[in-house]
Amino acid sequence: MLNQYRMQAEIITIGDELLIGQVVDSNSAFIARELNKIGVAVYQITSVQDDSDHILNALTEANTRSRIIIMTGGLGPTKDDVTKNVLCDFLEDTLIQDEEVLKHIEYLFQHYISTPISDLNRQQAMVPSRAEVLHNQFGTAPGLWMERNGSTFISLPGVPFEMKALLTDTVLPKIVAHYDRPHIVHKTLMTYGWGESAIANAIVDWEENLPREIKFAYLPSLGRVRLRLSAKGSDKAYLQNLVNGEAKKLYPLIGEIIYGEEENESIEAGIGKLLTQKGMTLASAESFTGGRIAEQLTAIPGASKYFKGAVVSYATETKIQMLGVASELIEKHSVVSEAVAVAMARNVRQIIGTDFAVATTGNAGPTKGDSDAEVGTAYIAISSPERTFAQKFVLGNHRERIVQKGVNKAFELLQKEIVNF
Amino acid sequence: MLNQYRMQAEIITIGDELLIGQVVDSNSAFIARELNKIGVAVYQITSVQDDSDHILNALTEANTRSRIIIMTGGLGPTKDDVTKNVLCDFLEDTLIQDEEVLKHIEYLFQHYISTPISDLNRQQAMVPSRAEVLHNQFGTAPGLWMERNGSTFISLPGVPFEMKALLTDTVLPKIVAHYDRPHIVHKTLMTYGWGESAIANAIVDWEENLPREIKFAYLPSLGRVRLRLSAKGSDKAYLQNLVNGEAKKLYPLIGEIIYGEEENESIEAGIGKLLTQKGMTLASAESFTGGRIAEQLTAIPGASKYFKGAVVSYATETKIQMLGVASELIEKHSVVSEAVAVAMARNVRQIIGTDFAVATTGNAGPTKGDSDAEVGTAYIAISSPERTFAQKFVLGNHRERIVQKGVNKAFELLQKEIVNF
Repeated sequence: MLNQYRMQAEIITIGDELLIGQVVDSNSAFIARELNKIGVAVYQITSVQDDSDHILNALTEANTRSRIIIMTGGLGPTKDDVTKNVLCDFLEDTLIQDEEVLKHIEYLFQHYISTPISDLNRQQAMVPSRAEVLHNQFGTAPGLWMERNGSTFISLPGVPFEMKALLTDTVLPKIVAHYDRPHIVHKTLMTYGWGESAIANAIVDWEENLPREIKFAYLPSLGRVRLRLSAKGSDKAYLQNLVNGEAKKLYPLIGEIIYGEEENESIEAGIGKLLTQKGMTLASAESFTGGRIAEQLTAIPGASKYFKGAVVSYATETKIQMLGVASELIEKHSVVSEAVAVAMARNVRQIIGTDFAVATTGNAGPTKGDSDAEVGTAYIAISSPERTFAQKFVLGNHRERIVQKGVNKAFELLQKEIVNF
Repeated sequence: MLNQYRMQAEIITIGDELLIGQVVDSNSAFIARELNKIGVAVYQITSVQDDSDHILNALTEANTRSRIIIMTGGLGPTKDDVTKNVLCDFLEDTLIQDEEVLKHIEYLFQHYISTPISDLNRQQAMVPSRAEVLHNQFGTAPGLWMERNGSTFISLPGVPFEMKALLTDTVLPKIVAHYDRPHIVHKTLMTYGWGESAIANAIVDWEENLPREIKFAYLPSLGRVRLRLSAKGSDKAYLQNLVNGEAKKLYPLIGEIIYGEEENESIEAGIGKLLTQKGMTLASAESFTGGRIAEQLTAIPGASKYFKGAVVSYATETKIQMLGVASELIEKHSVVSEAVAVAMARNVRQIIGTDFAVATTGNAGPTKGDSDAEVGTAYIAISSPERTFAQKFVLGNHRERIVQKGVNKAFELLQKEIVNF
């Protein structure tokens, strides 16, 4: 088997709901990201059914490849949850009642859960006798840590926020204390505007001359491409220098399309930082984006310092009533037009009283709606203390993508305007 | 090996970005859902690295268990994409240039891509000589269909919208034509308000007496539990009857908490249907939900018929200026209060001129912000032609969850009010 007993982990996510596609597995990405930060590489992610044989099989295979195995799911109080029994089979153990866990379950029911406690709930206090129990402050299913022959088997609940708290507060510190690990250094450059192969062309010489220790990847989505450099080894400072040095060389080649270096930093988070630094404020007036600009801005903690509010003027009459867009203007130019976008941005900036404003009007489909504009046609306007302007975009014919592309373009225009102010 | 050569599929998703957690694998859930609809069960989902040996290994293992193997990713123009070479290794084939694909790539570059075509792009026209090429209308990487000994190996691009179009338009019809399949019937009841074990307690007798053909699962998330009945067999009408009959028996037991039967139907989609039927309209005034109510409503095609708009009054002064909430009222009761929620709902309903309105004010944290309210405290108000009222909620201490729970509660209150109107 490949990479046997390198310092790596595997993730096994358990649940029929994953295999019939009712739930997207977001737990794995979170676990993988956190493990990488402490220098543990994830070799494979496997999603299996609520079926004892299947889980046992996945566990056996993973154990031939990796020393840390993290399982999520299959710990609920209902009959379809079988993970604990499989762990007992695999590690030749039996379930016993844990008094601490039982007390915690009873406490949660007394204080936070409106329905009465049942025997099913109390059964969640049954754990393998040799397991170390990991306290789940947010839920009734405890985490479990079991060891055999230098390998560790960790079982966590599948509910994302319970899993995340257990992993961050308990599991990661235990892994750090338990294992020597290589260092993994990542750096991600966030770019917009060019496609994957245009970038590849511009940096072909750089890519061919990368040091052996560095792995390089393109991660495209919706007009953005993230460029990721990774290096693994024993000397963290050396790796960091190596990665930083190579990343720096990209700026003379493609600096114009790089908007940030923080892993997964969004443009809107960058806008928030800029506005906070400058002590300036922002509002939005949204038609086809339906409030998503506001929603993405307010998802950032502390947004209330710079984001004052929005008008979602989904109907044409709302543009007239709430934003004071003249009905003659709409009749003359149509509701999806440069003139209307400009009026929306200028007016919302004045009405809410902010330094900057962004406005969107467009047609996300599936039908033409209130306007004559083709599906995918959109105008995005920016208003600053100095000027107001709009730009036209053609965003394809897929409703969900039209909205998200429009939001992305709005943030790109805003970022440029604010950074240059 | 388990279930050898039953009519089942496996999904292999390829990409380092999955294993370091930079990207959540949403492709698998989509593929699994679509395969289930045509009676193909997904046995396992495996995510592997951009590494030839690793992909080859996953492919070999999957092929011992399942007859259909769908791979996504690793088809881009850059050096880290190796799927096609692995397929050639595994099926003993070589790459040749496909003229049709080359023409399509050149066409896409001429018409839709602003950067010039390069040799890297042209290399995407190289395909295994025995592969059937699946036309990718939205992108430059073609899909591939290869067969050996009754098994089918399908390679699709990792970009979600390209993958989805290829799967739906080409791959699924080919599988339907190619294989005899059992029928899989699912029914999902959407519930809110009770936890998993409270429901389990109420239906324990029903669950124990379920016919052998039916599998039952609880899928909890944020105060909602979806209950899923599944049955598999050769007689579709029989299975449908069986599942419908058992689902019906749940209504006398837990009917009060069931809000819908459509798989993954959201409450807001139900609200949209109700408003359309009644010919009535809706607006929102949002503080701590930051526009997410508007955003979720406008994500539904046709929402412009009943959703007129929203005011996102994130700052206190915006509540005064845009919504006409009296500053004395805010001083007296605080901005997070029943009185302010009621004023917001009543006023936005009047200002935008709709039949119904929903308003939110609360503290999503991490700090107390403009109000004295504890993090997690929220008031949600509903205004109808007959009355306006607000309800208080305590939504925990996790910012992202506070917002989503608030949005969910707002939709629950709205749904009850509209359905009873």
